[in-house]
This record gives sequence, structure tokens and C-alpha cells, in this order.
Amino acid sequence: MSVKELSANDLKIILDFTVNLARKAGELIIEGSEAIQLAGSNVDEKKNSVDLVTEYDVRVEELVKKEIFAAYPDFKFIGEESYAAGSRSPLTDDPTYCVDPIDGTTNFVHGFPWVCISLGLIYKKKPVLGVIFNPFMDLMYTGITGQGSYVSRLGGPPKKLPLAKSPKPLATLNHAQIAVEWGNDRTVDPLTKRSESFHKLAGDPNNGVEGGRMAHSLRSLGSSAMNFATVAQGGLDIYWEIGCWPWDVCAGMVIAQEAGGLVTGSHAYYEKTKDLPSFGEPTEEILTGRKYLVIRAVGDSETEKAHDAQKRIMGEFYSTVVDYNVS
Amino acid sequence: MSVKELSANDLKIILDFTVNLARKAGELIIEGSEAIQLAGSNVDEKKNSVDLVTEYDVRVEELVKKEIFAAYPDFKFIGEESYAAGSRSPLTDDPTYCVDPIDGTTNFVHGFPWVCISLGLIYKKKPVLGVIFNPFMDLMYTGITGQGSYVSRLGGPPKKLPLAKSPKPLATLNHAQIAVEWGNDRTVDPLTKRSESFHKLAGDPNNGVEGGRMAHSLRSLGSSAMNFATVAQGGLDIYWEIGCWPWDVCAGMVIAQEAGGLVTGSHAYYEKTKDLPSFGEPTEEILTGRKYLVIRAVGDSETEKAHDAQKRIMGEFYSTVVDYNVS
Repeated sequence: MSVKELSANDLKIILDFTVNLARKAGELIIEGSEAIQLAGSNVDEKKNSVDLVTEYDVRVEELVKKEIFAAYPDFKFIGEESYAAGSRSPLTDDPTYCVDPIDGTTNFVHGFPWVCISLGLIYKKKPVLGVIFNPFMDLMYTGITGQGSYVSRLGGPPKKLPLAKSPKPLATLNHAQIAVEWGNDRTVDPLTKRSESFHKLAGDPNNGVEGGRMAHSLRSLGSSAMNFATVAQGGLDIYWEIGCWPWDVCAGMVIAQEAGGLVTGSHAYYEKTKDLPSFGEPTEEILTGRKYLVIRAVGDSETEKAHDAQKRIMGEFYSTVVDYNVS
Repeated sequence: MSVKELSANDLKIILDFTVNLARKAGELIIEGSEAIQLAGSNVDEKKNSVDLVTEYDVRVEELVKKEIFAAYPDFKFIGEESYAAGSRSPLTDDPTYCVDPIDGTTNFVHGFPWVCISLGLIYKKKPVLGVIFNPFMDLMYTGITGQGSYVSRLGGPPKKLPLAKSPKPLATLNHAQIAVEWGNDRTVDPLTKRSESFHKLAGDPNNGVEGGRMAHSLRSLGSSAMNFATVAQGGLDIYWEIGCWPWDVCAGMVIAQEAGGLVTGSHAYYEKTKDLPSFGEPTEEILTGRKYLVIRAVGDSETEKAHDAQKRIMGEFYSTVVDYNVS
């Protein structure tokens, strides 16, 4: 196929390739997990568990790159290592894989099975395809822009997302199950703003917590890609994140949006775009902005009313939490 | 068998019965989940999702009670409903099932599959047997005092807990993956103390957070029984909880302890008992005290050194977080 023009059918073929690649990578992730569990505290072992995580992170990324370049030699690749190497060039129009080989690394090192590989494809600077695979639970999430998103468990038939026949409306944050994360930057300024935000989301305004929203529940699960996928499925209503990178969210953005979810960026981006007809469409600015807010389908997402409801919840959310920057 | 004397072999037979009961209850939990997903926003349905949760909570408890009383007519039963009905009598020496039919109710209503049934058995006022079953992931955790604890996934063979051959030591909280929960009581006093505690656990003491411990990660997963089971497995290092009830933790206490974990109660209970030889053994006071701290096996839990390491981590933990009471 031509690299410059990807049809809907091309994307289907790429999805099959990516799903197979995710399963192959999943075997390597499981192998790494077992090596870490076995290493334990045995000081005679040459490697400790953190070394092993790094080793398997690199090995999975190498496997993925090798297979992608064999199948699609003209595609580009974005990952943590290439970013870290300084090549933070703006996106091009070329098809570009954007991959986190092991998302949920802290869970991975601790042996907690909320871990996945996240494989996104960017085309003309927008995420257009996503595969998120949790090999421990054999949960495979897929999505293609315009073609819906799906979950398959234990190799079973794909089920369309969201799973609910008709997603429940979400009148206020009071009814919401919200994923937030404590992140890696725990210096006093971002941490204080994060703590303050969580406190207000959780707090009961009728019992002393000024500005409290009494959210139904707050969750911290430790994998941004799994958080996006779980919002798409309907198991979380909202996910808020500051500090992630494009490879953490690229696949999830497609999967969530195709399930009727809405994704936006920072407080400022929300204010700037909320009245535009394109509000909620994945953009390069959201993808690379390191601030994300995603909300599940609310009612019938085909109607203007549902879209308005999502925007209203986003407005309520951003008027509650405090913006901050991380290193 | 005599109700008054339960041998090790009696407990094995009771465990088989309880595992089968958990699977039967699991089918009903799955049925309830599907009913909730289907109900969605359809206002023509007679029942909304919260009604359905209550309905299935009651139905599962009724199923469990019926089967228990058919098999063991002399056993007693403790659950949320009987407690709520005012019969908060002290425990007796009789075998007493202590059951949460659906643990992780908020997850359940939102369709997030981190949900289980928790079936504990108390004998002579101590938890002696536990079964925790997550029907969505087909994860079955079991434990009998003195006979070890196990996990079986997808009906596979039971694996001894913890899963790691030789659990990693835990030098400080800095290396720990810690589960905490936001709970139901969000009034200003408990919430403020909870927020302050989480802030200190997460905070970087070298970057402005006074008293910060820079824990490796904080998780909030929404099921206390699954938290206990995950500590037993090794996927969490620590779980801290204020506000749970005996049926939330009874099964988990046995499973965690048999995996080399240590369970204690409130700050005051920890201070009072930490120098006793019996420290870390399940007691009636811990079971009913509504404050729980559990830590996984650290190194070889058979040795005094490992036990000391667990106590040291508990001391560090309780010197970091703030005690509070909930309604």
C-alpha cells in the first residue's frame, strides 16, 4: 500500500497485524514477569527486578520495532527511547507507530497484573488506530477511527464498546467513578495541587468540604492505557491525567473516542475549544500536550444532547481540580 | 462433624464446600452484572442499576445462607444485613461464616470487574478459613490457618501464595506499592486526615514535602477483600484501611497471613501489641476493630528477621499516616 494514503481497509489490515504483534509482545511480557517473580530477593542472581524491568521494556520495544519495520518499512516510530534521545520533532503526515511496550511499569515490577502493551498509529498527525493488550488477563482492546472499538477477553469474539446497551447518563461528578494517578513527580508544587484536587473530588460539600463534589469513587490503577480502555468499556466514567506522554495515550484516545468517549487536554485547551464544532476530536495538541481528560459515552453519543452532557461534566471537572505542571 | 471441634481435615472439607459455593455465587454475580449493563439508561426498565445492585446483593447473600445452613445447620452467620439488624453480639466460639456477598459494590455498579465474593469462617473467635472469588477474572483465592493459601486462575491448578519464590525485602516505604481507599465517609474530618496521610505517603521529602515517604506507588482499587488477596499474592506490598467491617476482611486476613503476611489493627493496637510474641496473629479485636494494616511477606517469613522487618515497616507506616474515625 502507499504510505501516504491509508484507506479504511488498509487500517483493518494494519489492525490485524497490530493485534498479532501485541499477542507476540504479550508472551515476552509474561516471560519478563515470571523472571522478575523468580528473581525475588535472591542476591546471587545477577540482575535485580528493576534491571529486569528495564531489560524487558527494551526487549519488547525491539521486538515491536523489528516487526513493524519488516511489515511497514516506511512507517515511522515514536517511543520513550526515541523521544528521550532528543528527536522530539513535530509529527509528520506519515503513518507513525506510537508505542509503550510495557504500560504500568510499577505494577509490572510489583507483580500486579494491571499491565499492558499500548500500540497506537498516528496518521496525518492524528491517532487513527489503537491496540491495548493486557496479557495477564488476556484482554484485547482495539479501535480504528470511524470503525468502532472492541474488546475481546480470553481470545473470545470481540464485543463492541461500550459494553452497556445504552450507557447511563451522568448528571454530575457525584455519580462518577473517576481514575486519577499520583504520578512520578512528587515534588511539593504538583503534589499539593494533585492532593487538593483529589480532596475536592472526594469531599462531601454538605459535611464541611468546601467545593467538594462527593464523587462516587476515586480509583488509582497505575496504567494510563488501561485507564483509557476501561473508560471506553464503561468501567470508569472519567480519567484525568497530567504528565503522560503520547505513547501512553495514543492507542487509548482512539479506543475511547470510538466508544463514544470524549478526550480533551489541559484546562486552557478545554476553555479554548469547548465551543468549537470539532471539540473532542483527537488533535496533535491534545496528543502531545501531556494533560488529558477523557469521559465515557453518556447516553446516546450520536446526539448533540449527549455531547453537551459530556462537555458539561468536563466543565464541572475542570472547575473542581487545580491545573499544574510536572517535569 | 461436631460443631464444637473442627480438625484440620474438617477445615479442608469445609474449604471444598466453600469454594463450590463461591463459584455458584459467582454465576449469580455475573448475571447481576449483565442485568445492570443491559439496564443502562433505559428509563422504561422497572429497575435502575442501584436497585439491581441491592437486589443481587440480597440474592447472593440468600443463596449463600441457604447453602450454608443446608450443609452446616449449626454454623452461625455474620453479614452486613444481620449486623445492620442490630445483632452486634460478641463473637462466640461457634463456627461462624462471615460473608460479603459482593465486595467492591461501587465497581460492580460501574461495571468495573474488580469485584469478588468474600467468604470467611470464624472459629473460637478467630478467622480460620477464607475464600475470595472474583468471577469476572475467574480468580479463586483460598486459605486455611496452618495450611497455607493459594490462588487458582481460570480453574487451573492452585499456586501457593505468595507467588514469588523468595519475596523481595522491603527496606522502606519508598519501595512499596500501597493500596489505600477513599471510603464512603467523606465528611471533613476523616477526609482531611486521609488526604494528609496520602499526601505524606506520596510526597518527595527531598523536594519540599515535609515527612514525605515517596512511596513507589499508591493504588485505590475499590475492593478490600481483593486488596487483602493481592497483598497475599505479592502484587501489593501494603494495604491500609479504616472503615471496613469484619465481612470485608475476614477471609482476606486468613489468606494474607497464610501467605506470610502480617495483619494489625489501629495505631493504638499496633503500639499495644508490637512487642508481644503473638503480634500479627488474627484476633477478635483486629477483626472487629474497623482499622486494618496488612503487609506482605518480606523475605523469608519463617525467620524472626522477616517478622521484624514487617514490624519496622508497620512502625514507619503508622508514624506517617494520621489516625481517624469514620461513621
